[in-house]
Amino acid sequence: MNTFGRNLRLTTFGESHGKAMGGILDGIPGGIKIDMDIILRETARRRPGQSHLVTARNEKDIPELLSGLTDDMVTLGTPIGFIVRNTDQRSGDYGEMAQLYRPNHADFTYDMRYGLHEARGGGRASARETLNWVIGGAIARQLPCMKNVSVQAKVISIGGVRGTSDELAAVVEDAMRRGDSVGGVVECIIEGIPAGIGNPVFGKLHARLAQAMMSINAAKGFEYGDGFAAAAMYGTEHADIFTSEEGQIKTLTNHSGGIQGGISNGMPITFRVAFKPTPTLLRDIETVDKEGHAKILKGKGRHDPCVALRAVPVVEAMAVLVIADEMLG
Amino acid sequence: MNTFGRNLRLTTFGESHGKAMGGILDGIPGGIKIDMDIILRETARRRPGQSHLVTARNEKDIPELLSGLTDDMVTLGTPIGFIVRNTDQRSGDYGEMAQLYRPNHADFTYDMRYGLHEARGGGRASARETLNWVIGGAIARQLPCMKNVSVQAKVISIGGVRGTSDELAAVVEDAMRRGDSVGGVVECIIEGIPAGIGNPVFGKLHARLAQAMMSINAAKGFEYGDGFAAAAMYGTEHADIFTSEEGQIKTLTNHSGGIQGGISNGMPITFRVAFKPTPTLLRDIETVDKEGHAKILKGKGRHDPCVALRAVPVVEAMAVLVIADEMLG
Amino acid sequence: MNTFGRNLRLTTFGESHGKAMGGILDGIPGGIKIDMDIILRETARRRPGQSHLVTARNEKDIPELLSGLTDDMVTLGTPIGFIVRNTDQRSGDYGEMAQLYRPNHADFTYDMRYGLHEARGGGRASARETLNWVIGGAIARQLPCMKNVSVQAKVISIGGVRGTSDELAAVVEDAMRRGDSVGGVVECIIEGIPAGIGNPVFGKLHARLAQAMMSINAAKGFEYGDGFAAAAMYGTEHADIFTSEEGQIKTLTNHSGGIQGGISNGMPITFRVAFKPTPTLLRDIETVDKEGHAKILKGKGRHDPCVALRAVPVVEAMAVLVIADEMLG
Amino acid sequence: MNTFGRNLRLTTFGESHGKAMGGILDGIPGGIKIDMDIILRETARRRPGQSHLVTARNEKDIPELLSGLTDDMVTLGTPIGFIVRNTDQRSGDYGEMAQLYRPNHADFTYDMRYGLHEARGGGRASARETLNWVIGGAIARQLPCMKNVSVQAKVISIGGVRGTSDELAAVVEDAMRRGDSVGGVVECIIEGIPAGIGNPVFGKLHARLAQAMMSINAAKGFEYGDGFAAAAMYGTEHADIFTSEEGQIKTLTNHSGGIQGGISNGMPITFRVAFKPTPTLLRDIETVDKEGHAKILKGKGRHDPCVALRAVPVVEAMAVLVIADEMLG
Repeated sequence: MNTFGRNLRLTTFGESHGKAMGGILDGIPGGIKIDMDIILRETARRRPGQSHLVTARNEKDIPELLSGLTDDMVTLGTPIGFIVRNTDQRSGDYGEMAQLYRPNHADFTYDMRYGLHEARGGGRASARETLNWVIGGAIARQLPCMKNVSVQAKVISIGGVRGTSDELAAVVEDAMRRGDSVGGVVECIIEGIPAGIGNPVFGKLHARLAQAMMSINAAKGFEYGDGFAAAAMYGTEHADIFTSEEGQIKTLTNHSGGIQGGISNGMPITFRVAFKPTPTLLRDIETVDKEGHAKILKGKGRHDPCVALRAVPVVEAMAVLVIADEMLG
Repeated sequence: MNTFGRNLRLTTFGESHGKAMGGILDGIPGGIKIDMDIILRETARRRPGQSHLVTARNEKDIPELLSGLTDDMVTLGTPIGFIVRNTDQRSGDYGEMAQLYRPNHADFTYDMRYGLHEARGGGRASARETLNWVIGGAIARQLPCMKNVSVQAKVISIGGVRGTSDELAAVVEDAMRRGDSVGGVVECIIEGIPAGIGNPVFGKLHARLAQAMMSINAAKGFEYGDGFAAAAMYGTEHADIFTSEEGQIKTLTNHSGGIQGGISNGMPITFRVAFKPTPTLLRDIETVDKEGHAKILKGKGRHDPCVALRAVPVVEAMAVLVIADEMLG
Repeated sequence: MNTFGRNLRLTTFGESHGKAMGGILDGIPGGIKIDMDIILRETARRRPGQSHLVTARNEKDIPELLSGLTDDMVTLGTPIGFIVRNTDQRSGDYGEMAQLYRPNHADFTYDMRYGLHEARGGGRASARETLNWVIGGAIARQLPCMKNVSVQAKVISIGGVRGTSDELAAVVEDAMRRGDSVGGVVECIIEGIPAGIGNPVFGKLHARLAQAMMSINAAKGFEYGDGFAAAAMYGTEHADIFTSEEGQIKTLTNHSGGIQGGISNGMPITFRVAFKPTPTLLRDIETVDKEGHAKILKGKGRHDPCVALRAVPVVEAMAVLVIADEMLG
Repeated sequence: MNTFGRNLRLTTFGESHGKAMGGILDGIPGGIKIDMDIILRETARRRPGQSHLVTARNEKDIPELLSGLTDDMVTLGTPIGFIVRNTDQRSGDYGEMAQLYRPNHADFTYDMRYGLHEARGGGRASARETLNWVIGGAIARQLPCMKNVSVQAKVISIGGVRGTSDELAAVVEDAMRRGDSVGGVVECIIEGIPAGIGNPVFGKLHARLAQAMMSINAAKGFEYGDGFAAAAMYGTEHADIFTSEEGQIKTLTNHSGGIQGGISNGMPITFRVAFKPTPTLLRDIETVDKEGHAKILKGKGRHDPCVALRAVPVVEAMAVLVIADEMLG
């Protein structure tokens, strides 16, 4: 359950306030030069503390690559093991929470599933896990088969507001001021995928993207192409008419979002992921403890008011892992 | 790519106009009495030709169970193989299509993926494949672990209209009259799942449901709980406050849709699936042939104007397969 | 548990005295012409009743291919479903056995595993299941990547006797006369595999062959290259010295059996499989029933005195499935 | 290819002379107290340098457990990540080897598979990888389901000699003196497994054990129960007659080695693994370089003359991983 992928497999471990996060990326071919700077660039993008809009937790998040590479950073074809030490833990912040179930967190469900949970910072359910995914994605981006592929995500709405960066930031700042949090939508566009990538039936490319995106913490919805809007459309509106340009078959429109029957058609692959508001609030909130007694959970801690903002590089990383997996197939 | 599930695995085959559809359901424990009537009831629900709103293709779709059962229909613990013969094929209807790429179908992408495609009726990309899933789901429903689980789907909107059955039917009839098709949204509610079912990280229950639902033909979007609406909400609105009722911990609201951190919390699991309009239209439409030459595709054939209507038992079947898989884990 | 393979996956079903055997072969690329005669040739090789040395059970074993192929027998890239009806069952022969545990059969262990077992002819534990494997292998042999690969198995000893066909036949005839059965060893040589096929660590080519061969009914041992004899050797005896012939690196000897570190080295791959004597005897034998009461099991039925003889095409089929799986990887 | 298991999955990484070995053990239930001393005891058993009969490489091999555990060493149900730093590398020893293909090593085949290989000490093909397996096995041994299970391996013959420890040691010492190496056979007996563990067809318990054992470096053969000797036997000799003792069904003999039809029958599970002589010799040996030019490989380095000796805890660890995987199923 901690492994993702088929040809390119990322297996991960780590609790947010344990000793380290880490993973094993298996299936990388031999002979590929890996650029550590690309890995650091991606992990920096998801790192907390970059602006006042995201949590102040200030870790370096420098991964140590432990295997699978020559001294010159050329892949050996063997699995790449990596770890990132957890250095800034302040676990005292979470002491009281160990006894209380935080609303919309996984404390209660982990207790039901495993009989106990690691309360310090969310444990395995913490979004810190996505650091592992970003590292895996940053390596996968460097595969030769990904050379012409562009994967670009961005936040397109926050709290129901679509607009410029400034307008979206204003919504987040307003929520912060009130000790509240707010949801958002991330859109991702993948270009440079040739037609014929993916699989039918249970291996549909969009179904794999859906599974990948819904694995991201706080994700509540996935749609590709016209998505939910297509459910309100007529067939005559939704049809992507084929045409031929310089011997290449294309479609005039892209309602389909670049995938038909689970297989890429050469048009840009477009999808959107809905993220709920961060469940942690800087307000007191009613809850229960393990015995079901009513309690008050004090609002404190350091958390992002809008998880969608930090999800952008994670969405890209997971999209890269899906696409690279298929391209290696 | 034609196998779904981990503990309970459904592997399927079949082109819509080939000799037969079929599958193998592996992982069913021994000693369970299987009621053939339940299988026939479910296949009847998805069968075409039940009303004027769905295609007139009139097959019996009676599955033949070939293994895994005693003469008294008690499971042996061994895989249940089944087939359904394709009897009503009229492949002449599709002759001309073999040379043309139908918009929003998988003809072109299968050609790019496999170098050829079975043009008669959609081949493997046909929604007839979902018959296999309904059979698998109808067997899985009968597992003892599913005894108290209710899985109920229904169409909640068509062409953007939410309303009564009559109002939704009117939208479909109107589209039919114009030779057009129309999209819709199916909602599914799963009740009776205890807290603690599912897995974190890459095995999240909602991610598996997303993958299952996005595997259904014409699905364009998936959301659970508040879904995309959560992206427009604030944390204070979205919080599901815990409470304790007769010693059982519950939440006052269910914005989360019954799943937190990928694991069920004991509340009803709610999700919605968006379906695009059926791509086949009863109108002439411009397209290209394999060489990219402009052609006119004549509108004919027998197809559902609203695929969401027939998707209802398929959504239920896939939900059952996911839940049963987890319950057996 | 009823699926074999990774890139090329065979999933099977069927009890020996149920309605049908069958399977689904998934992962075959599109555009390959399949020759039905090759399938019939292989199933004929394993068919009972070919000589007086093997059981008189006389079924036609003609598989019906139900999907994955055009009318011209060209693969579509979609899964090939197939069934073989069980026509000659004489289940009366097995009536009494339903209550008794046959020594060295799986009656008792299936009861412990599933709570019941299909007593007619061995049910799922019957060697009739290998018919499915031979069909899968006969299709896989026809893949372009297998064009230059030769897979040849033969019986090299029976009852401890190594010798000519005549000498081995004499051992079997002698056992038959006494109502007894006898074990044997099958050797298989695979030629035409280029260097570099396979995987290290848990995907070692010889480990996959071992798993495949040990899946065959009655198999008790597997060895490759020098095998168990290597355990009695010194390093200086066992070394395969490298040499270069016309620019191609080879080894002067082949103690390694064509595999080093789990990956083929271009030399012939050689392995042997030990088969126990058929457990069914034509003699009365002491046993117990389900309640543990002492009983006498009457010797009758139609069974092969030497299962190694009929295992030859099965060994080849499983070797083909392993090699094809790796070649497609 | 670097993952082993289904319910309990061990994924590993590491080159012998890279930064670290390590792995992720996924599928361990929550709430189990882990005793670090048991892990250290097992890693000590396989550690080089314990006697003059095994290589003098002297590493501490202390694993660091990075996740999946509370501070009190109670499992969280989440994956246990671990690493072991490689501290004693002396990579200079291997400098010259980078250009030469060592006979019976994986240098050549890795080059063919990946286009390059890590020559320092065998890289990923080194037996140092088995340290990861021993750590995984030492954790799995502590599962509640393994409480009554005993897994005991020992060397039963070396260089063809069966005898006491003293006699076997003499064979190894003699080989050492001559700069030679020697093969051996390890036998393993598993007791305490109830009847009904395992699966039929492709999931046979002995087939899984075969795959596990053949994954161990230098393994050339696997047999269970009577193994290859069964191929020289008659059915009347090989039959395990059922009997009933105090209401429990047993067999009078155990030719079957505790498994029938792929499922345990409650008798001890017995198997043997053949290991070839260590390929590294302390003698000069002829070989070729990457271009195929004839070269002399100087004999030096620190290696075990008899790999079977150090394989004993590895055989046990892999057996534990297979059994625990099935017991959790």
